[in-house]
Amino acid sequence: MRPLSPSDQLFLWLEKRQQPMHVGGLQLFSFPDNAPDDYVAQLASQLREYLRVTPPFNQRLTYKLGQPHWVTDEHLDLEHHFRFEALPTPGRVRELLAFVSAEHSHLMDRERPMWEVHLIEGLQDRQFALYTKVHHSLVDGVSAMRMVTRMLSQDPAENGMPPIWAMPPRERASRDDGGPSLWRSVSHLLGTSGKQLGTIPTVAKELLKTVNQARKDPAYDSIFHAPRSVLNQKITGSRRFAAQSYCLKRIRKVCEAYGTTVNDVVTAMCASALRTYLMNQDALPEKPLVAMVPVSLRRDDSDGGNQVGVILANLHTDEPNAGERLVKIHQGMEEAKDRYRHMSPEEIINYTALTLAPAAFHLLTGMAPNWQTFNVVISNVPGPKETCYWNGAKLEGMYPVSIAMDRLALNMTLTSYKDQVEFGLIGCRRTLPSLQRMLDGLEEGLADLEAAAGL
Amino acid sequence: MRPLSPSDQLFLWLEKRQQPMHVGGLQLFSFPDNAPDDYVAQLASQLREYLRVTPPFNQRLTYKLGQPHWVTDEHLDLEHHFRFEALPTPGRVRELLAFVSAEHSHLMDRERPMWEVHLIEGLQDRQFALYTKVHHSLVDGVSAMRMVTRMLSQDPAENGMPPIWAMPPRERASRDDGGPSLWRSVSHLLGTSGKQLGTIPTVAKELLKTVNQARKDPAYDSIFHAPRSVLNQKITGSRRFAAQSYCLKRIRKVCEAYGTTVNDVVTAMCASALRTYLMNQDALPEKPLVAMVPVSLRRDDSDGGNQVGVILANLHTDEPNAGERLVKIHQGMEEAKDRYRHMSPEEIINYTALTLAPAAFHLLTGMAPNWQTFNVVISNVPGPKETCYWNGAKLEGMYPVSIAMDRLALNMTLTSYKDQVEFGLIGCRRTLPSLQRMLDGLEEGLADLEAAAGL
Repeated sequence: MRPLSPSDQLFLWLEKRQQPMHVGGLQLFSFPDNAPDDYVAQLASQLREYLRVTPPFNQRLTYKLGQPHWVTDEHLDLEHHFRFEALPTPGRVRELLAFVSAEHSHLMDRERPMWEVHLIEGLQDRQFALYTKVHHSLVDGVSAMRMVTRMLSQDPAENGMPPIWAMPPRERASRDDGGPSLWRSVSHLLGTSGKQLGTIPTVAKELLKTVNQARKDPAYDSIFHAPRSVLNQKITGSRRFAAQSYCLKRIRKVCEAYGTTVNDVVTAMCASALRTYLMNQDALPEKPLVAMVPVSLRRDDSDGGNQVGVILANLHTDEPNAGERLVKIHQGMEEAKDRYRHMSPEEIINYTALTLAPAAFHLLTGMAPNWQTFNVVISNVPGPKETCYWNGAKLEGMYPVSIAMDRLALNMTLTSYKDQVEFGLIGCRRTLPSLQRMLDGLEEGLADLEAAAGL
Repeated sequence: MRPLSPSDQLFLWLEKRQQPMHVGGLQLFSFPDNAPDDYVAQLASQLREYLRVTPPFNQRLTYKLGQPHWVTDEHLDLEHHFRFEALPTPGRVRELLAFVSAEHSHLMDRERPMWEVHLIEGLQDRQFALYTKVHHSLVDGVSAMRMVTRMLSQDPAENGMPPIWAMPPRERASRDDGGPSLWRSVSHLLGTSGKQLGTIPTVAKELLKTVNQARKDPAYDSIFHAPRSVLNQKITGSRRFAAQSYCLKRIRKVCEAYGTTVNDVVTAMCASALRTYLMNQDALPEKPLVAMVPVSLRRDDSDGGNQVGVILANLHTDEPNAGERLVKIHQGMEEAKDRYRHMSPEEIINYTALTLAPAAFHLLTGMAPNWQTFNVVISNVPGPKETCYWNGAKLEGMYPVSIAMDRLALNMTLTSYKDQVEFGLIGCRRTLPSLQRMLDGLEEGLADLEAAAGL
């Protein structure tokens, strides 16, 4: 039995009926060569044999003196956690995304280890999918992505590879050296204020005081410029998940033409998609939208572990020209990175804290502050560069499924795999109707940049 | 906009993460003759066209001065409510029951009209299924069953029949003249005490006082005899659904042999199944289990509407001989009915109230009283006697999916259809492991009775 860390407790505490706090991943595989038609059903039978569940997947919540602890589940029922399912006719990606949308909307059973793996048959073209769902208090998004990658092999001939719940566990120490994430930042923020979750009203009051002081300070003026938008409303309990792969080569060519980074182009694609989506709803704010982009601030002199920072990326959604928009986004990102380069570690903490404070204040108190530092979260989680296989089945794509929250109704998370950039958009289905149209917006955004660059 | 009745509010109020308060029904159909292989997919497309949703299926919750009201949902998203889904290979009833078990465990989105219809393809033998899920505050179990029946026709040639959400609505007055149910009884109990839900502590205190007085009264002694059992523990959030049809002719022959009613034999089958299940877990209480059986007490002199009563049926699970057990159950049921026959309306209210009081007390306060009046709910909802069709597809079976609650971890609901008795068992998956084995117990119970009668 071990107690949950304060940040892991936070995910339990923030969870509401309409705001589940689990993360997910969708992996798309093609059948191995010569696989029989009932390959996925056979795979399901094989996976049901992995009854020895390893940490953290055998850990369930329990309460001791009112404090949450992890304890080994002695009655683990694999049938509850591993589910074999099927898509309806005609088994396109559309049906797959509808499946994930529905499943990602459901809360998990807190009386059991909070994970589920759904093996999905019925896809067209001899493909199948795995949708993995883990509560953020058990495994964070970055670690989950790393586990999912560790499950795979670059050798198509390798066999007998266990599923994620039966892999030999890694040392716990490695848990925190993943990439940056919103949640690492938020828990860092709450951590630096030196308070436990028991004193949330105190933390919230402190946040409010700090923010009100900073708003008067011209040095922090740039932080408080996000407009109000439909993205920043209360959410409901049902989700829409949309996912697509985009060709890294095309993105790289745009980078070369404009002298920007891949991340800049990807951010510009998101900006385009948001602009078009909101314009079609007659809901584009006059002032440009601001994205919160978690970044890693590793320095040579750092004593191990990652310093996590956040960049407030002005998305220049008021700029009609796609090329101009990319150039401006690039300049803003460079300035932000530059600003970080000249900051002391204390200044970085202050800056990050102020950036997150309004969102954290809202999450902790449920009250909407009358300032907004960002409208949307765009995160980039690194993925494998080589072609991967799982028991001979080739991984065709992998898409992160993140968390939508009150006042942050959309989360755009992307990862990279081989020559692809993989987007996963998760949002509240009611606040953001037909959000799957943003996939077309991403593609159009890229095409506009290619056209503007004469590619 | 209209306010929810106190009893409908009760279902919102009782709902917890691990105790969803929706009811469901599973209908199994066979394809019409000459239907193409993609019949179910075509049906799904047709059903998606029924965009005009009729009351109560277009009503969502809203709050006005803190009180829940129903209001028409102006942004109804049919894709959220009507879902086309598929079973994995090999598409047996087992996969169908696993599907319903998982779906019935999920809370519904309270920001939308609280109903879902799942059209399920992928069953063997040219069959398909409909699983309908409705929040108990929107439609009660008996009314839901009646709606589902009203959707059907006895004419295999009839076509263009709308789905349940698009049927012309019936007069609201008809809502309360259905069969008896646990919930009608509980809300009646709360209603007779003349209190609103706002004063739950008062109601609970009154309940407790009444019960403590009655326990000293020899006239009510018979009420307080249920033993403690594993059926009466706290539940978790995941469900197991098990369902099966049993031949009414076989049951009728046993009735004739023993001179009992169909209901007696069905109750005896439940008793057998519970006895075997608990014995296998080494958890059969020494004292016999007691079932709460809601009954209709229609009298000639009644001024319309049904008086609902409850019978506490001693299941004689301590009796090893199946025939003896049936005879004793029959005698007990007759005595209970006889007792009602000699009661004044006031006495009936008193008796019913006392029977339900410990369960209601627990539901209202979350505290476990140290007496138990019954261990399990066995309800019988009347169903259609003739073969039914839906747009030419023949209804093969229909199974009620009810509610499991804290301290009532199992609910056995049955209905009749043609020459079948249809059992639907819903229970907490953790409290009652492998509860699907009770289906074999029901069959064995019937076979034992046949053997004992020399049939």
